[in-house]
Amino acid sequence: MTARLDYAAQSPELFKKLGLYSHAAHTASIEAAIIDLVNIRASQLNGCGFCLDMHVKEATLRGERPLRLHHLAAWRESMLFSTRERACLAWTEVLTQLPAQGVPDELYARVRGQLSDQEVVDLTHAVMAINAWNRANVAFRTTPGTLDAAFGPDKAGLA
Amino acid sequence: MTARLDYAAQSPELFKKLGLYSHAAHTASIEAAIIDLVNIRASQLNGCGFCLDMHVKEATLRGERPLRLHHLAAWRESMLFSTRERACLAWTEVLTQLPAQGVPDELYARVRGQLSDQEVVDLTHAVMAINAWNRANVAFRTTPGTLDAAFGPDKAGLA
Amino acid sequence: MTARLDYAAQSPELFKKLGLYSHAAHTASIEAAIIDLVNIRASQLNGCGFCLDMHVKEATLRGERPLRLHHLAAWRESMLFSTRERACLAWTEVLTQLPAQGVPDELYARVRGQLSDQEVVDLTHAVMAINAWNRANVAFRTTPGTLDAAFGPDKAGLA
Amino acid sequence: MTARLDYAAQSPELFKKLGLYSHAAHTASIEAAIIDLVNIRASQLNGCGFCLDMHVKEATLRGERPLRLHHLAAWRESMLFSTRERACLAWTEVLTQLPAQGVPDELYARVRGQLSDQEVVDLTHAVMAINAWNRANVAFRTTPGTLDAAFGPDKAGLA
Amino acid sequence: MTARLDYAAQSPELFKKLGLYSHAAHTASIEAAIIDLVNIRASQLNGCGFCLDMHVKEATLRGERPLRLHHLAAWRESMLFSTRERACLAWTEVLTQLPAQGVPDELYARVRGQLSDQEVVDLTHAVMAINAWNRANVAFRTTPGTLDAAFGPDKAGLA
Amino acid sequence: MTARLDYAAQSPELFKKLGLYSHAAHTASIEAAIIDLVNIRASQLNGCGFCLDMHVKEATLRGERPLRLHHLAAWRESMLFSTRERACLAWTEVLTQLPAQGVPDELYARVRGQLSDQEVVDLTHAVMAINAWNRANVAFRTTPGTLDAAFGPDKAGLA
Repeated sequence: MTARLDYAAQSPELFKKLGLYSHAAHTASIEAAIIDLVNIRASQLNGCGFCLDMHVKEATLRGERPLRLHHLAAWRESMLFSTRERACLAWTEVLTQLPAQGVPDELYARVRGQLSDQEVVDLTHAVMAINAWNRANVAFRTTPGTLDAAFGPDKAGLA
Repeated sequence: MTARLDYAAQSPELFKKLGLYSHAAHTASIEAAIIDLVNIRASQLNGCGFCLDMHVKEATLRGERPLRLHHLAAWRESMLFSTRERACLAWTEVLTQLPAQGVPDELYARVRGQLSDQEVVDLTHAVMAINAWNRANVAFRTTPGTLDAAFGPDKAGLA
Repeated sequence: MTARLDYAAQSPELFKKLGLYSHAAHTASIEAAIIDLVNIRASQLNGCGFCLDMHVKEATLRGERPLRLHHLAAWRESMLFSTRERACLAWTEVLTQLPAQGVPDELYARVRGQLSDQEVVDLTHAVMAINAWNRANVAFRTTPGTLDAAFGPDKAGLA
Repeated sequence: MTARLDYAAQSPELFKKLGLYSHAAHTASIEAAIIDLVNIRASQLNGCGFCLDMHVKEATLRGERPLRLHHLAAWRESMLFSTRERACLAWTEVLTQLPAQGVPDELYARVRGQLSDQEVVDLTHAVMAINAWNRANVAFRTTPGTLDAAFGPDKAGLA
Repeated sequence: MTARLDYAAQSPELFKKLGLYSHAAHTASIEAAIIDLVNIRASQLNGCGFCLDMHVKEATLRGERPLRLHHLAAWRESMLFSTRERACLAWTEVLTQLPAQGVPDELYARVRGQLSDQEVVDLTHAVMAINAWNRANVAFRTTPGTLDAAFGPDKAGLA
Repeated sequence: MTARLDYAAQSPELFKKLGLYSHAAHTASIEAAIIDLVNIRASQLNGCGFCLDMHVKEATLRGERPLRLHHLAAWRESMLFSTRERACLAWTEVLTQLPAQGVPDELYARVRGQLSDQEVVDLTHAVMAINAWNRANVAFRTTPGTLDAAFGPDKAGLA
């Protein structure tokens, strides 16, 4: 795997605007711990190594339990996630994969039972934002960890 | 199908920031005719009725041939798209569906053969932006055509 | 995409017999407006450019609204189709894609609620007939529009 | 599984016309032994119990080796099929499943290497015909074996 | 298809231990007739020609009806399997294919309604064992029938 | 998620025999570091929370780098795996998912280029063994971590 184009350098203005949107979506009404889970699970589903690496480091810096991060790939079978977190992860999966029949009413009702209107909308934006980044980094094969120095997640001490 | 939450009203700031990003991505180096094709094809793949409706109207307002719009759902078999447009549609499809093995080298090379570095990056942002909108409108089942009055695409005269 | 064998010229007798069956299926008890929708949606799902082109032109000649044709690719989210049309489209999709578990009882009941026994059978034949044509034209990559002069759908005025 | 509508009784004229087409397709230039393999393999892929039952009996009546019939579900790994038969089975599979990218050039070339132009077209019609019957019998859950008395395949002596 | 490595000769100790496990799983509390159905259906789903061939011969030696073996590829539509057999086949399919959401509660309840606790566990081991063999024989393309002389299933008289 | 049957208690003899096979497969010619990667990646693909939890802990006890474990879900894009490890992971994926066309010659050749005959066979057994355990633990929803006390992986210190 060799990296392709440096899309940040090529179109700095678009990179900046996506950054502004993404930052706002990831710091809105949903707690940081859930945003990390969303970012990591979407990156796993989309096969994005760069985003997976970055968000695992961010979650670790924030103090997330390592075992929860390891359980994320099979979260449905884990006992380590709350009912609220499980609803957010199910919402992340359905909006990342967009099944042919759309988003089922039962799932929407389940998410509404755990989140306020504001939170449902903000969570949806968070899923949209990570899905955008995943597409850029898969398209251009950005090497995982290359922005550690600039963004700081190498302080996570993850060997 | 009944609409769910009005996500624009609920989180106006996020809606605005996504709009700024999306507008910039859709008016960068790629010609408007191709941006319309990208928006329509991604919306078909993602099953987003609202975005499909809006971008068909926008393309019609811009003067796109109706038959090309009808051919989009089976564009590989159509004679109505240029080599450049076909490369952009293939790029749109692979980044919308993100196959498990990532984006193949042959497809990346084919796109590089038709677009400049700048254009490849900007096209990628256009695909990312429409994929974001598709997710919001599928999640909240925004009724197709409801923004015609505000955004103007009803002038397309599409009965 | 270059066309392959001319299957009509190669086996004129089989072409004629399929034509007789198909014509009968498409002019039985189901109204022409729905037959057009069925033909177009199946052709989209099967990726058949030739049939998609022909049936969009036929529907246009018959007076179908352009916007309904554009909405077909995401019809579940559209408000432009009646309950009866939606049942017919769902029947078209399940019989075109044949999921591993067969045709669910709920879907069969839903279709029975909208159509008479005669209509259910005739609709099924219509789906079978367009699925047959789709396979021939995908197999031999018949160029979309090449039969306009012979069959007349170029009078649709679709640019 | 209980049978649904009797589609032959409901629309006898369409049933008859499909029968005429199908009979012609299955008795054209392709040898009966291959037509049986095509009918059985398509019925397995489409999950059609009625057609599977009928065509296994027909093949047995014709004198087909039982072991070849058992191998069909994993024919790629079997040594019991000729190069010509394998090409026909691959053509049957691709036209039954219609992958999103259409029918690959390599597969078309492979089939052309084993069959005359006439045979390629007639084989394609055979695949189209069995795909039509499969859809009818899956839709209406025709009970396997119910036409043994009328059509005769119970003489196959298959317990 | 040419065979690859002879895995039994290469690692005789692992082959023997798998054989001991598999033999025990296939001769535990579940009746032989169902074990045969499980082995054949899993081999069809996994595309394993070697195991399909062997277990069809074993079932035939045991006295299984040929028509039931032919119906297995579309067993949901067949009238030839008991409620108990159908539950075991559904369990075999879900554990062979492992859908993303895991094994549904309704299916587990359905199987519990037909089998004792002991039988559910032993059936599960039987599915696990044939899935292991399928992987070995697909990986190394073991030629179907090559062990007839050693294992005896050629006495089945299957031509 | 509540656990279902305790399959070890129900059929201790089968559990023991599978354990003997599995232990032998996991301590044959392939180095422990790769066996851990194989076990974890297969468990992610099969959605098995119990096995994922156990093998992450085992790998940690053995001294595996946490970041490599986090990268496994998108290993194709990671720089942290050797050519040999990547070949083993690709072999694990193809044998876990068994695509309809079987195991491609190019992949087999790639694996042969990195492993001896003995190692290819032993690696295949390792994949077969973890696939068996995954099926048991998904079927019975064994709670992740419940065997920590008995098997020791809680000494991994993973919070």
